[in-house]
Amino acid sequence: METLRVELGSRGYPILIGEGLLGQRTLFEQHVRARDILVVSNTVVAPLYLEALQTSLQPRRVVTTILPDGESHKTLANVARVLDVLVANRLGRDCAVVALGGGVVGDMAGFAAATYQRGVDFVQVPTTLLAQVDSSVGGKTGVNHPGGKNLIGAFHQPVAVVADTRTLATLPARELRAGLAEVIKYGLICDAEFFSWLEAHIEELLVGDAEALARVIRRSCEIKAEIVRRDEREHADRAFLNLGHTFGHAIESATGYREWLHGEAIGAGLVMAARMSRECGYLGAEDLQRVTRLVARAGLPTHVSSVKPHTALEHMRIDKKVQAGRIRLVLLRGIGSAFVTADYGEPALQRTLATHLG
Amino acid sequence: METLRVELGSRGYPILIGEGLLGQRTLFEQHVRARDILVVSNTVVAPLYLEALQTSLQPRRVVTTILPDGESHKTLANVARVLDVLVANRLGRDCAVVALGGGVVGDMAGFAAATYQRGVDFVQVPTTLLAQVDSSVGGKTGVNHPGGKNLIGAFHQPVAVVADTRTLATLPARELRAGLAEVIKYGLICDAEFFSWLEAHIEELLVGDAEALARVIRRSCEIKAEIVRRDEREHADRAFLNLGHTFGHAIESATGYREWLHGEAIGAGLVMAARMSRECGYLGAEDLQRVTRLVARAGLPTHVSSVKPHTALEHMRIDKKVQAGRIRLVLLRGIGSAFVTADYGEPALQRTLATHLG
Repeated sequence: METLRVELGSRGYPILIGEGLLGQRTLFEQHVRARDILVVSNTVVAPLYLEALQTSLQPRRVVTTILPDGESHKTLANVARVLDVLVANRLGRDCAVVALGGGVVGDMAGFAAATYQRGVDFVQVPTTLLAQVDSSVGGKTGVNHPGGKNLIGAFHQPVAVVADTRTLATLPARELRAGLAEVIKYGLICDAEFFSWLEAHIEELLVGDAEALARVIRRSCEIKAEIVRRDEREHADRAFLNLGHTFGHAIESATGYREWLHGEAIGAGLVMAARMSRECGYLGAEDLQRVTRLVARAGLPTHVSSVKPHTALEHMRIDKKVQAGRIRLVLLRGIGSAFVTADYGEPALQRTLATHLG
Repeated sequence: METLRVELGSRGYPILIGEGLLGQRTLFEQHVRARDILVVSNTVVAPLYLEALQTSLQPRRVVTTILPDGESHKTLANVARVLDVLVANRLGRDCAVVALGGGVVGDMAGFAAATYQRGVDFVQVPTTLLAQVDSSVGGKTGVNHPGGKNLIGAFHQPVAVVADTRTLATLPARELRAGLAEVIKYGLICDAEFFSWLEAHIEELLVGDAEALARVIRRSCEIKAEIVRRDEREHADRAFLNLGHTFGHAIESATGYREWLHGEAIGAGLVMAARMSRECGYLGAEDLQRVTRLVARAGLPTHVSSVKPHTALEHMRIDKKVQAGRIRLVLLRGIGSAFVTADYGEPALQRTLATHLG
């Protein structure tokens, strides 16, 4: 087992990464203080891993709630259901909410934990690559609104993240690929060497090589933990983590969160961010090609025909990155070097959207 | 105008108290940075003060949303309506939500501000005595759940509190009395001298004497600001502010938030907390009598016949003050001296409930 730490003073917490952690009762004894637990999972993950987790949480009182699977179910109404279960079972302010599943389960369970009794303990047990490398770390919780992605939510750091890499063995190939989008993102924003390593090892990752996956999970969590430490509330550098997300969110939102997995939309979004960087003269043609090629090799979309450029633009305007009415974009000066700007020409944006959408 | 400050480092903010502040455009220019504003008010307050506030907020873009009046409408569904308005009007992360009204409006607008885009600026413009002396200060936001009072919410400090004392001139007498419950609470928990002053001046307050009201608003905000500074998240002393609230919330919750105003339930709750303190041998008989008498003179209930003792107990068990299954109570060692304990006999609690309920 490997232990990283998100250093946030009194809100700091460990990220535990390793094979078979779900079955280690001592680990949960050590990291979860609460006597009363609500485990939130979904209809796909619960049949696979809920029993093992419940066993590891004994002898506490464990209540469970199972949500439908998928981004289109990440709604305030489903968080309200989780809150109803907390109230109906009389769970007190000293309880903990445990998320067992991917990013959707983690975001909703985390938002319920953030708002139940104005905040109770929260534990992330991510079971998808995307959740293990990205969404389980950093305290962003929330739900989608029909008008836009993640528009409702809260910052609420977990007390621990337990990433059992063995759960990836049952992960559908499509979900694995979706997770790779966020992994590629880390290389792009701040680690050119890691990006090169990914170029050399993408095939191993795609067939689920355990050692290669363990390496990318560790490196991704290291990068994310460091960025979150520096800027918990996204006043500055944390915005780099949104590379490709303004484009990706618009794709998800314009397709009703049903056509593309989050990671797939981010794959296309990364290519669009690179294209936009090229259009603005920040990124070389060769680097754009490297980004496009790696995203494509990871089995992720680089073009989304079902979304029209003007529809995407409409959805981008309500994105959280909008400031003073202007869409702020994370762009690249090179592989491993991201920056934020609202200083770009509309034609460059139009060309970018026209190239990859519709 | 008087200015107090809640000292919370980067989250600190001013409380501005004075006559006619609603009409002072320079004041809002100084304290509200956002260009885009959502004003949340209710059907009773909006006809009286919304126009004046809108004028003072010019030349910004101001969107408004008007909620139904009353504690029974303090629901997640109504917060969702506010969030819908924010999204529909494409308000960005740099917007501000302004609450114009009493505690119910402030709690809901604040929760919407806390969760929209994971937190936007929030300004309190309280128009009831209760909101001016208590709920607008300290960052507690949230809504009720059918299972219990304020069970869903967040800590989200405002960027400014603007208390225009002139708005109290239109406040119904019943609402004024309700606000006095929280004022009496401050005397009880930490200021015996203030309590004595209230005993001497309660009649002036009840007829709405502006000078007497200004004094209690100032002193109440001073006490609250100091307690919040010491313990923002209620890990310790802030719990004293809940004196009477475990009883009061049970009354509100058991009557569906429809029969009693929050302050009225707190009036009865203060008497019950004093009675419980007496039953446990902490408080003298004379002090219990002083509390009961002042609450009664303020026109607040000291007995609630519509709630049965066992029903109240059921509702108390889901209160946020429950820890390890035990109801923690704020009790009194004397007037001006509160403490928190879970160490009391059940019979004392039973007798307290039986004396004041049913």
